[in-house]
Amino acid sequence: MSLIVQKYGGTSVGTIKRIKRVAKQLAAHKKKGHDLIVIVSAMNGETNRLLDLANEINEHPQGRELDVLISTGEQVTIALLSLALEQLDIHATSYTGSQVRILTDRTHNKARIIKIDNVKINEDLAQGKIVVVAGFQGCDEYGNITTLGRGGSDTTAVALAASFKADECQIYTDVDGVYTTDPRVVHEARRLSKLTFEEMLEMASLGAKVLQIRSVEFASKYNIPLRVLSSFKQGGGTIIMDENSKMEQAHISGIAFSRDEAKLTISGVPDHPGIALQILGPIASDNIEVDMIIQNTGHNLTTDFTFTIHRNNYDNAFKILKNTADHLGAQKVSGNNRIAKISVVGVGMRSHAGVASTMFGALARQDINISMISTSEIKISVVVNEEYLEAGVRALHKAFNLDREFYQNNNSII
Amino acid sequence: MSLIVQKYGGTSVGTIKRIKRVAKQLAAHKKKGHDLIVIVSAMNGETNRLLDLANEINEHPQGRELDVLISTGEQVTIALLSLALEQLDIHATSYTGSQVRILTDRTHNKARIIKIDNVKINEDLAQGKIVVVAGFQGCDEYGNITTLGRGGSDTTAVALAASFKADECQIYTDVDGVYTTDPRVVHEARRLSKLTFEEMLEMASLGAKVLQIRSVEFASKYNIPLRVLSSFKQGGGTIIMDENSKMEQAHISGIAFSRDEAKLTISGVPDHPGIALQILGPIASDNIEVDMIIQNTGHNLTTDFTFTIHRNNYDNAFKILKNTADHLGAQKVSGNNRIAKISVVGVGMRSHAGVASTMFGALARQDINISMISTSEIKISVVVNEEYLEAGVRALHKAFNLDREFYQNNNSII
Repeated sequence: MSLIVQKYGGTSVGTIKRIKRVAKQLAAHKKKGHDLIVIVSAMNGETNRLLDLANEINEHPQGRELDVLISTGEQVTIALLSLALEQLDIHATSYTGSQVRILTDRTHNKARIIKIDNVKINEDLAQGKIVVVAGFQGCDEYGNITTLGRGGSDTTAVALAASFKADECQIYTDVDGVYTTDPRVVHEARRLSKLTFEEMLEMASLGAKVLQIRSVEFASKYNIPLRVLSSFKQGGGTIIMDENSKMEQAHISGIAFSRDEAKLTISGVPDHPGIALQILGPIASDNIEVDMIIQNTGHNLTTDFTFTIHRNNYDNAFKILKNTADHLGAQKVSGNNRIAKISVVGVGMRSHAGVASTMFGALARQDINISMISTSEIKISVVVNEEYLEAGVRALHKAFNLDREFYQNNNSII
Repeated sequence: MSLIVQKYGGTSVGTIKRIKRVAKQLAAHKKKGHDLIVIVSAMNGETNRLLDLANEINEHPQGRELDVLISTGEQVTIALLSLALEQLDIHATSYTGSQVRILTDRTHNKARIIKIDNVKINEDLAQGKIVVVAGFQGCDEYGNITTLGRGGSDTTAVALAASFKADECQIYTDVDGVYTTDPRVVHEARRLSKLTFEEMLEMASLGAKVLQIRSVEFASKYNIPLRVLSSFKQGGGTIIMDENSKMEQAHISGIAFSRDEAKLTISGVPDHPGIALQILGPIASDNIEVDMIIQNTGHNLTTDFTFTIHRNNYDNAFKILKNTADHLGAQKVSGNNRIAKISVVGVGMRSHAGVASTMFGALARQDINISMISTSEIKISVVVNEEYLEAGVRALHKAFNLDREFYQNNNSII
């Protein structure tokens, strides 16, 4: 008998019919003898409906009262799912974050989980009940309702899995796993059956929006196997777990990419210590997130400095950088807001040379010019003009043989 | 400085615009220096929307999970009202029933309040904050969410007023007070400025659906002055409080009535002890509420037994009574489902003779036949054929001079 934590996102519980389907699926899992803790999000659209009400009533809804408001979304779902289970004669008990006592810090709207109280839920599990918990929410030490920020239900699921030492944490969503790349771009894209936490982190932060980054970090920290599955399609999904020797055979697990990037260059900046902070400080102060940062080797006591940002922030960042350039006596500011980023990700990169040369060679054969390169231990990212994005992703997917299966298919626990 | 508890019902907070209006009104009251605890219901229609979802997912939604579901209705309102107050730069803190810790028994869907924890709210009041509390809900000793049953927000308001020894409990609703009778039936119907708790209880239970009966009982028990006011119209409303000498001058405070009544008679029943239970037991077992009960003096060792019920239960009750009649060897069962009840209510009845004769005389002059009579210390009810309802109410309103003011107008505290 295993203890499984399952999380169903907003789409999976988006209608009464879908909630009923989830209940049936849970009933089937329960009959196999597993203990189940189920985390649910608000029904699709509900959080936005509540936010619209808040925006109608207050110019800047935030803080404590916003959390009181939007936490009702998941509370509705836990009650409905429990009622659906009762209809199937399955005993279930629902819990809000406060009722479990998922203790968080006091940062309303994006709180962090500090501690989970296992007592009540353990009693329910001992009685054979399915426990249904509201995702995305908790309470601070004074009993004020807090929320974990958008997508926080994944974090709730992983935190509960860690607290109860679950055998697996399963994230049911509208995709059936993590793919080698976006199937809409590369038809041969293949679902990965296994992935390491690090690879998933690189994939997630690079645009494969399947899981919340925080929840992957959490699962990695507590070593909870994390499985991504479809609520609508049968299949074992993708399991994300600690690196093991079997995985070493694969060089590369996937090609991630993101459109909507822009880059800015400030050229001829006096090359002295602290210059990076002077350039990026004002950008960060304006809440613009910077992704890749490259500083070329200086010449004539000056240097060129390039960084990428989301395209939406381009105009704003350009203005700020102009100011900085005037202030620093830099030569000029230039930019391009029609670029894209392609990354190859894989833990196998560590033990295999030649990944970079395979990558650059494949792009060169397509006449794709690389304008920036950035590397980490398990990924290489390049910036290209956006019109080459699709061709580049396809070429790389093929060059790394991602249309062929490397990993063993592993069977789902349940 | 006074401590005022105010309750706003579902219509008063039914839209964002109305919630904003309530916030403005609260801001004005606050500026006069009063401490305010505000109880709100779910926005109009919200509880029914949630119940519809529950009914879609479960044939008999009830118990713990139904309370988890419907308690979100008030939680949304407390958050929105607090956000509206923040927008006006008024400090406010919202509380769900569980957060206050309105401790109830464990009877889900119609729990009773046992105790209220004053600590947190007292801290907020000391800091000059407006405290906004979700009506209709509490929690049991294990932290399970409970609800008080429909209309329970009035009860929450009175219970908080009692717990905090408030100077007044004000119920804002869509009518501007309690009237001598329904103004749609008698144009001369007059708003009463004062009423005793007992009179209000008789008026409420007889069909003047302004306040929940339980909340009036509660207010009476703890001697909390209760004021009914309109959210939409200026005016002092009606205050309901302990009887005092001034009130003695009035015989009668109002004419209550209810349509949709039906009566059933079982005739020629063997007259022996326990017969009433034998007749009414099966009716009660079917959850049919019985209102008036009359047993005529027996003749020939048999008796006739008549009672009234809501018209909706007529067919069902008729069948049950037929069965009972066969079982008891009664002569026959007859009934009429087109009757109505009219009552004159007034604490003054105690010290003034002649109320009954004035009543029967007024009805006789209109040729209205009385088919049943029932009396209590402060009311007399009669059953008439439904076509005489309006004429009867008008005749009585006039006969008791209810179009003329007896009570002093008393000024509202705020």
